[in-house]
Formats: sequence, C-alpha cells, structure tokens
Amino acid sequence: MKNLIFYFTISLCFIFNSCQEKVNETNPPETTTTRSGPPNIVVIFCDDLGYGDLGTYGHPSIVTPNLDKMASEGQKWTNFYVGASVCTPSRAALLTGRYPIRSGMCSDKSRVLFPNSINGLPESEITLAEALKEKGYKTTCIGKWHLGHKKQFLPTNNGFDSYFGIPYSNDMDRKGKFEYWDEADNIPIAHYNVPLLQDTREIERPAEQHTITKRYTEKAVEYIKENKEEPFFIYLAHNLPHIPLFTSPEFKGSSLRGLYGDVIQEIDNGVGKILSTLKEEGLAENTLVVFTSDNGPWRSFKDHGGSSGLLRAGKGTTWEGGMRVPGIFWWPGKINPGVQTGMGSTMDIYTTAIKLAGGEVPSDRIVDGLDLSETLFSNATSPRDHLIYYRGQSIFAARLGNFKAHYITQGAYGMFGKKEVHNTPLLYNLSVDPSEEYEISEAHQEEITKINTLIANHKKDLVVGKDMLADRE
Amino acid sequence: MKNLIFYFTISLCFIFNSCQEKVNETNPPETTTTRSGPPNIVVIFCDDLGYGDLGTYGHPSIVTPNLDKMASEGQKWTNFYVGASVCTPSRAALLTGRYPIRSGMCSDKSRVLFPNSINGLPESEITLAEALKEKGYKTTCIGKWHLGHKKQFLPTNNGFDSYFGIPYSNDMDRKGKFEYWDEADNIPIAHYNVPLLQDTREIERPAEQHTITKRYTEKAVEYIKENKEEPFFIYLAHNLPHIPLFTSPEFKGSSLRGLYGDVIQEIDNGVGKILSTLKEEGLAENTLVVFTSDNGPWRSFKDHGGSSGLLRAGKGTTWEGGMRVPGIFWWPGKINPGVQTGMGSTMDIYTTAIKLAGGEVPSDRIVDGLDLSETLFSNATSPRDHLIYYRGQSIFAARLGNFKAHYITQGAYGMFGKKEVHNTPLLYNLSVDPSEEYEISEAHQEEITKINTLIANHKKDLVVGKDMLADRE
Repeated sequence: MKNLIFYFTISLCFIFNSCQEKVNETNPPETTTTRSGPPNIVVIFCDDLGYGDLGTYGHPSIVTPNLDKMASEGQKWTNFYVGASVCTPSRAALLTGRYPIRSGMCSDKSRVLFPNSINGLPESEITLAEALKEKGYKTTCIGKWHLGHKKQFLPTNNGFDSYFGIPYSNDMDRKGKFEYWDEADNIPIAHYNVPLLQDTREIERPAEQHTITKRYTEKAVEYIKENKEEPFFIYLAHNLPHIPLFTSPEFKGSSLRGLYGDVIQEIDNGVGKILSTLKEEGLAENTLVVFTSDNGPWRSFKDHGGSSGLLRAGKGTTWEGGMRVPGIFWWPGKINPGVQTGMGSTMDIYTTAIKLAGGEVPSDRIVDGLDLSETLFSNATSPRDHLIYYRGQSIFAARLGNFKAHYITQGAYGMFGKKEVHNTPLLYNLSVDPSEEYEISEAHQEEITKINTLIANHKKDLVVGKDMLADRE
Repeated sequence: MKNLIFYFTISLCFIFNSCQEKVNETNPPETTTTRSGPPNIVVIFCDDLGYGDLGTYGHPSIVTPNLDKMASEGQKWTNFYVGASVCTPSRAALLTGRYPIRSGMCSDKSRVLFPNSINGLPESEITLAEALKEKGYKTTCIGKWHLGHKKQFLPTNNGFDSYFGIPYSNDMDRKGKFEYWDEADNIPIAHYNVPLLQDTREIERPAEQHTITKRYTEKAVEYIKENKEEPFFIYLAHNLPHIPLFTSPEFKGSSLRGLYGDVIQEIDNGVGKILSTLKEEGLAENTLVVFTSDNGPWRSFKDHGGSSGLLRAGKGTTWEGGMRVPGIFWWPGKINPGVQTGMGSTMDIYTTAIKLAGGEVPSDRIVDGLDLSETLFSNATSPRDHLIYYRGQSIFAARLGNFKAHYITQGAYGMFGKKEVHNTPLLYNLSVDPSEEYEISEAHQEEITKINTLIANHKKDLVVGKDMLADRE
C-alpha cells in the first residue's frame, strides 16, 4: 500500500509538472511581485523612426519580433501622434503634456536646439518626471535629452534622479568638413564629437556611438533590477535611428534593410530585453511600457532614413508622415490587447501616467494631454478627437475626428514641395484616405467650419511661451 | 488507507483538469481528427487587395483581427509575389504553377479575358485541382474563375468537382452607360449584369453582389463540414475588393476606411469563420490555409481601390505595388510561426500543395513553382531566389536575390508614367529599398549581368503558349 501511495504521489508530481510545462510554453515563467500600488512607467522613445519601420506596421525587410510581440500582447495604436515633427519640440510635448508653443520650446527661427543654443526647457514647466517624483517615483533619464544642455536644463534639474546619455542629436558637434554620404555606412565616431553625460558630468567624448543603443538598453535593464521595490519611471530616449547610423558589431549586417534596419533591429532586441527583464523580475503586471518615436522619418537621407509606410511625406512636415508614429502600449493583464484606431498623442502619455500614479495634472496651466486609461484598459473610445499640427510657432493643420484641414503646407529638407498658404484649406478624410491623396474640401465645407472653430477655441486661451530655441551663443 | 488513495485520485483528477483548463485558455478546445494522411488545402485568393490593405501589413484604418491572428499563428510572408499583375494571367499562374506565358494565358492584345472572349485555360494544362484529384482529393472552386467562361473552360472541366461563383470580374457585363463615380457607394447590382453559376449552370443574373462575399464564405464553411472524412481542396477566390464594391448590410459602414474597408473587413470576418470551422471540426492540424491576392491595388479607383503600403505603384504594373501581395500561410502545429522575408510566389502554392498531397508535379513540362514546405515548417531559406516580371508577353523586369532590374517600365490605368525602355536597366535593391526609390545600376553592373543571365536562361527553354486572351466574338 505504501508503494501505491508512492506511485500516486510520483504520478501527481509528474502530471503536475508536465501541465506546468505546457502552461509555461505559452506563458514564460514569472515571479509575482508583492508590491501593489502605482505602476512603473517605461517610455521608450526613438529618434526619427517612421510609421512604416516596424514589422507590425508593415515593413517587409526590417524584422522586429519583439516589438511585434509587444504589439500583439498590448495595444497597437494606428493614429498616434507627436506634438511636433522635429526633435526638440516633440520631446517637450511628451515631457510636459503640452503643445510646445506653450512652453516656448518651438520657434520659427530654429527647428531645434543646437550645441550653441543658450536656453532649454523653462524651469516653470512641470515635467512628467517631476510630477511622478511628487508621487514617490524613482526616475531616470537614459538617452537623448535635447531640451537644453546647459546644466540647469539637464534631466537632473527636471525631475530625474539620474541621467545617462547624449544631451542632443547624435549628428551635432560635427568636426571638420565632410559629406555624410562619403562614408555613410562606416562613419568614424570622431566626426560627430558629441558628449556622453552621466548626470551633468561629461564622461566620454566623442561618445562611442557604435555601442550607444546597447548601453542605453543595459542601463535600463540594470535600473529595473535595482529598483524593483519602488515605483519607477524610466524615460529611455534612443539617439537612433537618427543619422549618423551606428550599431554594435553583433548587429552590423543583421538586417536585410541595410544599416538602418540593423539599427532598428538592435533597438527591437533591446525592447525584448527590457520586457523580459520586467517579466523575470515579476514586474510586468505592474508596469506600463510605451514605445513610440519623436517624429517621422528623415527621408532626405534616403536608405539611411526610415519609411512613413503609406503615409505622406516625413520629418519636418505636418503631413501625416511627419507627425504620425508607431505607438505601442504594453501592460500584461491590464491592457486590452488589440489594434486601437482611436487618436492618441505623446502628450497623452503625460496625463495617463500621472493619473495612473495617483496624481493630478497641474491645474495652474493648460495641459493638452488626455487620460487614455479607459481606452487602454477597456477599449473605450479614445478621449482624443482632435490634434493641432504646429510647425514652429504656426498652426499648419488641424484634425477633428476623421477630417484634417491643411492651412499651410510645406516640405522639409529639400523634399515634398514648397510652402503654400491655402485660403480654403486642403481637406482630407484620414480614415478613408490615410495617404492624404484625395482633397475633398469642396464637398465638406461644414467640416472646415468645425475645424476653424476648433482652432479659434485653441487660440482663445493660448499664451505663447517665450521662444527658447532662437538664442544662441 | 482507501480514503487516502481516494483522496490522491481525486487530487490527481482535479490537478490534471485544472492544468488542462490552463492550457485550453491559450489553445481553444479542438476535437482531434482521426484521419491522418495528406492535408486539406484551402487557398483564399482576393481580387485587387493590395500589399498594404491588412492590419498586419500596416493599414491604419482597416481592422483585420482574423487575418492578423492568422498571420501571428502562421507565417506572414513579406516578399510574396503573383505571376502577373492582372487578373486572368495571375490566376493561371496560381492554378498551373507556371508563368502564364507558357499556357498562353497572357497577351499583348488583351490584359484579361472578357465576356466576349472565346478561349480559356488550355485543356493541356494540369491545374492544381487536377493534380490533387489524382491523389484522391475532393475539390471545389468557389468564387471568381476568370480562366474562360465557355463550358469547356469552367472549373468543373478543370479538376473541380463543383463550382459556385461569378466566372469573371464583377465589373463586367456592364449595362448601359454610366460613370462609376456617379453612384460609387450605392451602385445597383443590375449595372453589372454578371451571372452566378452553380457548376456550369447560371442560377442568378445579375448576381446579387451585396451578399456574394458572405455566400462564398458560407459555401466554404459548408464544404468543410460536409467533407471532413476526405482530403479536400477549396479554392475560394473572392470577387472582391475588385470594383464595384459591395458588402452585406451588416458590414456596410463597419470600417473607418469607407466601403473599401467594409469589404475587406467582411472578407476578414469570413477568414475567421473558415479558420474557426476548421478548428471546431478538428481539421485545423491537418489543413494548410493560404491567404493571398491576385495583384496589387487598382489605385485609379481612388478610395475604392486599395493601398500598396510602402510599395511603388499598383495593379497592372511590374513595380512592386503591382506584383507583391500579402501572403499568409496557416497550419497550426505544423508551420513555424513568424515573419518570413524569403521570396515566394503564388506559383509555389501549386508545387507545395502537390508535394504535401504526396504527388509529383508534371514532369513533361516546365513548372515554375517551388516547394516551400521546408521554409514553412523549419524556417529553411526559401528555395525561391528569383522572379520574372511579365507584362503581357514581355519581360519587363526580373529579381534575383535582393536586386531587381527593370528593362521596361510603364504605368497602368492612367497612373505611374509612360512606357520607357531602359537600355541600361533600372536597378533597385528591394531589401534596402522596398519602395524602389534609389536607382543603383551604376554601382552594381555585376548584378545586372547576373539578372541578364537569369533571363537568358529562362528564355532558352521557353515555349510561348498560343495567346488565349486575344480572340473575341
């Protein structure tokens, strides 16, 4: 009889184990966190990655299994926008939840901040990091900052406990005269003498850009492992795939798409590492991860620039290719998986994250970000039904519902046509015609009227911030 | 002690059951088929659906959860081609596994067959249905045929046991004079007096096109339920999204993308029904399902035509937008899931299916299709490394590896430019530059030489079939 019991016990263990394995095949092992309370927030922000550059957004030769999986486990947003189609203002929009016109982080005199710019994000702005810190978060900024490189403007003076990264674009501090194309696939890093900072201290110059993507990922992974007891906010802003393109040796040649694809595939690999670290550390079910980009692809760099997919034009313009970007939200067990066609903006990350942290967005100023939680968790209709498309300090276009009116159109970087002011705005139905091919203003005057009203209301309480981009040394 | 054994037994059952449930949460319950042997083959072939028209291929406002799931459970091919960029020759290529130049199913005098055409697929061709019938398959053709509508050319004379469908394009047999755009979203079906056939018998005229997509799906579902004991081949060739666009009432307005999106979403819904029927009937693990399209989108129909995504041009051309289409392979438990960037062709469906059925492709003629099994099942490198791009009976372009040379370029349907013959062919690297934007012949003469040799070899043993499209009543 003892044998019989022994036999049953063994069988029991065997069957239980074998079932566990089956379960584990589909759900990788996770330790469960004991911490409850506000979720960790991880924002992964790419530079110049286009709408069409990921597998799940339709690229045929860039292979992104980690981002594809993140999208199928989470929500893939197909109408997700940035606050401006170039770097500095777009970053200001994300971190303040406000159109950059309010903070003064956009200008008609300078697209972005340069190494000889003297200003940065005004101290009066309340960054997402500051708001989350208020609620007890640990905060770190890893990667590209580009909101002012003088000490007082750096991340550690804007709510981040620590900073590791290149404080502006990786093509700045250019040394000597050379044409990008001369050595495009093998550029010496010394041609771009950009500094790498630890907090406010320069620790490397020129920054070794071949390993920069990898090091940013490693920093994020370390941070997660070291901070599992606290709610944390990681703002991981990759310097790439902005030109000049660099990858680690192990990713060089990894992609069919050339060096640009190699760079994306290294970023994709890094996303995989971050998500699996969250799983392994038992934090996945208490962490919101958002993956997006700062603007459309820099198409004048040909195959060193990305793809807008089916969208029109690219970086620097207010066509969809300049302003609409991939937007993937991931939070296992919490986010309702699927494709989300409602509108969203990087500014909404600000408000959504603060609400999830149990905070309130600042009430002494206009915040443009909206709380997307209900859409993420319950598939509720997105609260965002409109967007203003600024270029510099001017409104070029606006979208309300499916309709977008262009008041001014203008190409950028030598592409996509000259500046044109439209007395009757060009009107497109972006749902039916995402490529902005079929102008329909004649048949839809009432939509133009509605958009005119939207803009008038937006302007009514608009206080234009002092231009922080124009002044240079 | 008996109690103890009882306790253990009960525990055992409980744990086993609870594990089963966990497994079932991720894999829905399936009855297992007892039949072994060759797999069922289901080919779902759309008409004019573009590379960019599905969610998983990047469309932002057409929502295709069933095809997205099919792609993530199966293999999504991103370099999958048709044998010609218009209807009749493309269908001939799929069903014969041969470039249509060999069967004579392409012409410089007529793009496709018309209601007054007198010919069709030559009897000497061995269709996929005939080859599978040879191996004991039951076979049915549902949908658009377009390989000859005279009785001797119909599916039932080409290896199919039965046929239900419109024998050519849904815009043919036009009644009276009217402009498509006059009533685009609400066209009376009587404007296109196309017949609906059961086998060779006309059972409805004009075919009620509002319900045609739904009825095709229903026929496929019925067929699966009625034929579970046999290996079967279903060739389901939707007449849509070819214009004129029609949907069932329940799909009208279902999509953000307008009527075109409604049509795709009804097809997507149908794919979901077919796959779930296969699961419910316990046939999923013994059935290969392929979803693809006959050519690129008919872009001259504006928002009633589809999208090539990031690919250049569309239907009728030998640019990628004309010839590259979605290609999704599904066979749970058998296909290695993921994105497949290797090349494939609809002609390869022919050879792959025949091999899976345990047959041999005809040895008395050249068959261009290749067996993709190892790529599908083991992720082996695709055996296809080249493709010849015919337009009518002329070679316009050819691809070898990543490189494509255009010898002749020409737009179609009033779009994409005039005919140009290139003494030095235009050369593109399709992996690095899928949009065919950056011509590189000067730096890659050796690739042109290789492609010239490829074409010379192709021509060496080419016997041009008698033109079956030119003659009309």
